[in-house]
Amino acid sequence: MPFELTILGCSSALPTSKRNPSAQLVNLLGRFFLIDCGEGTQVQLRKHHFKIQKINYICISHLHGDHYLGLIGLLSTMSLLNRTKELIIFSPKGLLKILNLHLKLSYSKLSYPVKIIPLEGNGMKKIFEDDVLELHSFGLKHRIPCWGFKLIEKKAPRKILRNRIDKYSIPLRYIKSIKLGHDYVMDNEDIIANDQLTSDSHVPRSYVYCSDTKYFNKLSDYACNADILYHESTFHSNLTNKAKSTFHSTSKQAAQVALDANVKKLIIGHFSSRYKNLNVLQEDARSIFNNVELAKEGKVWKIKKEYSHENNY
Amino acid sequence: MPFELTILGCSSALPTSKRNPSAQLVNLLGRFFLIDCGEGTQVQLRKHHFKIQKINYICISHLHGDHYLGLIGLLSTMSLLNRTKELIIFSPKGLLKILNLHLKLSYSKLSYPVKIIPLEGNGMKKIFEDDVLELHSFGLKHRIPCWGFKLIEKKAPRKILRNRIDKYSIPLRYIKSIKLGHDYVMDNEDIIANDQLTSDSHVPRSYVYCSDTKYFNKLSDYACNADILYHESTFHSNLTNKAKSTFHSTSKQAAQVALDANVKKLIIGHFSSRYKNLNVLQEDARSIFNNVELAKEGKVWKIKKEYSHENNY
Repeated sequence: MPFELTILGCSSALPTSKRNPSAQLVNLLGRFFLIDCGEGTQVQLRKHHFKIQKINYICISHLHGDHYLGLIGLLSTMSLLNRTKELIIFSPKGLLKILNLHLKLSYSKLSYPVKIIPLEGNGMKKIFEDDVLELHSFGLKHRIPCWGFKLIEKKAPRKILRNRIDKYSIPLRYIKSIKLGHDYVMDNEDIIANDQLTSDSHVPRSYVYCSDTKYFNKLSDYACNADILYHESTFHSNLTNKAKSTFHSTSKQAAQVALDANVKKLIIGHFSSRYKNLNVLQEDARSIFNNVELAKEGKVWKIKKEYSHENNY
Repeated sequence: MPFELTILGCSSALPTSKRNPSAQLVNLLGRFFLIDCGEGTQVQLRKHHFKIQKINYICISHLHGDHYLGLIGLLSTMSLLNRTKELIIFSPKGLLKILNLHLKLSYSKLSYPVKIIPLEGNGMKKIFEDDVLELHSFGLKHRIPCWGFKLIEKKAPRKILRNRIDKYSIPLRYIKSIKLGHDYVMDNEDIIANDQLTSDSHVPRSYVYCSDTKYFNKLSDYACNADILYHESTFHSNLTNKAKSTFHSTSKQAAQVALDANVKKLIIGHFSSRYKNLNVLQEDARSIFNNVELAKEGKVWKIKKEYSHENNY
């Protein structure tokens, strides 16, 4: 089952003719999370042939326009397409007022229930979980209240080794118990240890989204060991003072977070419109951390499963 | 001096990957009017290489999302680009609340003054004029309060015939008076009639925008004799009942308005996403009125100057 990230927009506040404002889609085991929803997101979803009704959850990092102004249009379109399934939105307080005002002025109702879960607090906090994943938020340091998000896959059950089941002629009714970690007792009372019948599942994968923020040490704790860290990189390090005064980060600062957090891959985005050639930002980051890629609209990153060394089968 | 229309978006409520929601730009003698501002309008303006700070006036027909959800982003961008010039917005009541809520939640201020002039009443009403043009609004019949707009050029002063001025050796200081329609008295007291020294200026041009509306007779009065009428044409006439129940128009109904109003050209737009090939809508309209064109993003229509038959020079 996939864990993949699609970038839909990676400009900062001023969009360009080639870069849309912030939005990205994460598919974690068939749960679809839209993270931020800048103006034009619904058209970006269409351009990349994505069915918008598949979206189950929307995470809005903060209420600057370039991170949420596409939301009302997207919600309206879901309604026009007769959605009935509940939509859960994680957002700073205030979004409900915006939604209600729009619905009132347009004499509209949505065809489906929306549950808005307000983001709160500074530290890392679990805000949602189901049987396969957890979603955490963490406070960033921007000009207005702003949060980042961490999506973590839960550890999957151990995997049955089919050839071993066949070898010991184990009846199917015992499979569930073996998956849960139990040993198997043969008719002759010999015990087959569980690790002879199963292999460990893959190492749980994780993705971290650092929206608009100035650099601070604690970020690397939040991003710790992520498979992919997406970090804003509005400016080159030769504009470090501007980054500080506007509560944004430079490419080098994003890379420093990636290095300290020991992530596998860093994707930088939220580029200032002044950069036509983004390679200067990639090079800036690479002076600190090697595995850096540039966010690009429509590009998909898949996080592959990896296994610990226990499995020799 | 030009009078030209650029279409920036011509989809109805559901945008497609090729058609953006409603927005268009009218340049009337260097005054730039943005008419409606659906999501993505600022990117459309950039794509078509238009400097957004040139916009002096914005007309919002109604508060359905596909006609205004690009406005907050556009106003923010104007501010980020340090606009100082006043912007005048003609809009249904309620827009001020939306703008104020956004500014409050994003802890922002605009760098320039915005004057919002609320649209009111049913009939045709002059809502703005300067030395060269008039802007009128007129009530439409949609599911929520909705207005159309008529932009009318004022009659320009008569034009000096340079060769006649030279022929009678008229000193330059008399030119202003002659432009205003006065005759010229020679030193020998012969009178040269003004129409020997000037020609009539061109016939004033006009443009009419009919936003979302169901068909009603009075529309043709509002659009009377326009050089170009843009009329919504959400459906083909084989969906007349659907048009009626959703308070929209068919292509044939748009054409009927054009015919009754004796306009020179009809442009149809606001197309339902169900139509991939728009020619069926154009053919539908042409069964009633011949000079029909399809709105297309980025396409520019210029309204040429025409002169009455008085001028034989």
